[in-house]
Amino acid sequence: MTTGPGPQPPASPAAQSPAPVRRDAEVTKAAILKAARQLLARHAHADITLKAVAKRAGVSAPLVLKYFGNKDALFARVMSFDTDAADLLDAPLEDLGRHMVRHVVASQRERGSDPLLRIAFAPLHGDHGDVLRANFRAQVTERLADRLPGPDAGLRAELAVATLVGLGVMYGIARGPHLHAADITAIADRYGPAVQAQLTPAR
Amino acid sequence: MTTGPGPQPPASPAAQSPAPVRRDAEVTKAAILKAARQLLARHAHADITLKAVAKRAGVSAPLVLKYFGNKDALFARVMSFDTDAADLLDAPLEDLGRHMVRHVVASQRERGSDPLLRIAFAPLHGDHGDVLRANFRAQVTERLADRLPGPDAGLRAELAVATLVGLGVMYGIARGPHLHAADITAIADRYGPAVQAQLTPAR
Repeated sequence: MTTGPGPQPPASPAAQSPAPVRRDAEVTKAAILKAARQLLARHAHADITLKAVAKRAGVSAPLVLKYFGNKDALFARVMSFDTDAADLLDAPLEDLGRHMVRHVVASQRERGSDPLLRIAFAPLHGDHGDVLRANFRAQVTERLADRLPGPDAGLRAELAVATLVGLGVMYGIARGPHLHAADITAIADRYGPAVQAQLTPAR
Repeated sequence: MTTGPGPQPPASPAAQSPAPVRRDAEVTKAAILKAARQLLARHAHADITLKAVAKRAGVSAPLVLKYFGNKDALFARVMSFDTDAADLLDAPLEDLGRHMVRHVVASQRERGSDPLLRIAFAPLHGDHGDVLRANFRAQVTERLADRLPGPDAGLRAELAVATLVGLGVMYGIARGPHLHAADITAIADRYGPAVQAQLTPAR
């Protein structure tokens, strides 16, 4: 099976301020992706129509086609971690633990989800889950492992990502009240070192 | 018949070898609970019949009634973390980090799931999710927080549990290959300290 986890160009971080039209387009695209994700959480890929995605997103089916080309291309985007992981991993290695903790908490607070949480919803059986798992591995854990010096880099990367996925579940699904009440810096102070210990262990 | 969710005798760890009949009963009960959990992951509580649970578990509906009394009592058991959390937390505080990591990994390897992973499947809306969240808080995170000395015990307990939930997601859902290949002691050596740092922080 070839899910093509090869290198892809990073998403441009909108250095110049975008025109209003462009911003509207981004909001609409995000709504379409969200709708597709929600439907995928409940239905098999084959059973989801573009029309159903459009209806849930509150747009027309032709608009979905305009932005994403076709259904396969839309779902390839939905099942990719590539863009999200680029932001998550965008820090020097020695500060990456804190950066990733802040990024997860900030994403939860701003968008009600975070870059990694989708993996927790991956179906245990079927193609959709297998594609998500393969993408997650290639685009998140192995990409992180490639940056880690020292022994057991693959295991350490999986453990570092495990701490972050757990943070997202505790925040977004279990809705821990202390986590919700805490200052983001206090969380990064307490949890960042636990992540960093996997990235640059003292031993 | 009252099978209420109150305190129940701990599952006897088979100090004396149990009679075959008793062991069969435990296997059957576990199959019924598993079937009910699987159905709850896909359907609303109100839409699930005892007959559907029985069918999925491969037993008769009267047998489900015999073991669990009625549908409400069955689902109270399904949505409780009480018994599982008792095992998870059963270690002295100074060794609790390693113990919990080993318990999660051993549970994943022996049963294909772990005591905490169900919270990752809690629906974001509706009664079922809210009951799971309330139980998780009372029976897992707050119970752990009660044992922690020092400041921010509630936050630290949530972060410690987050690391464990993340470990379960990475093992059981993302199926990280390095985690699957690693020795349980190697995992406990690397990850135990990250959990312990929340329980008994140096500062």
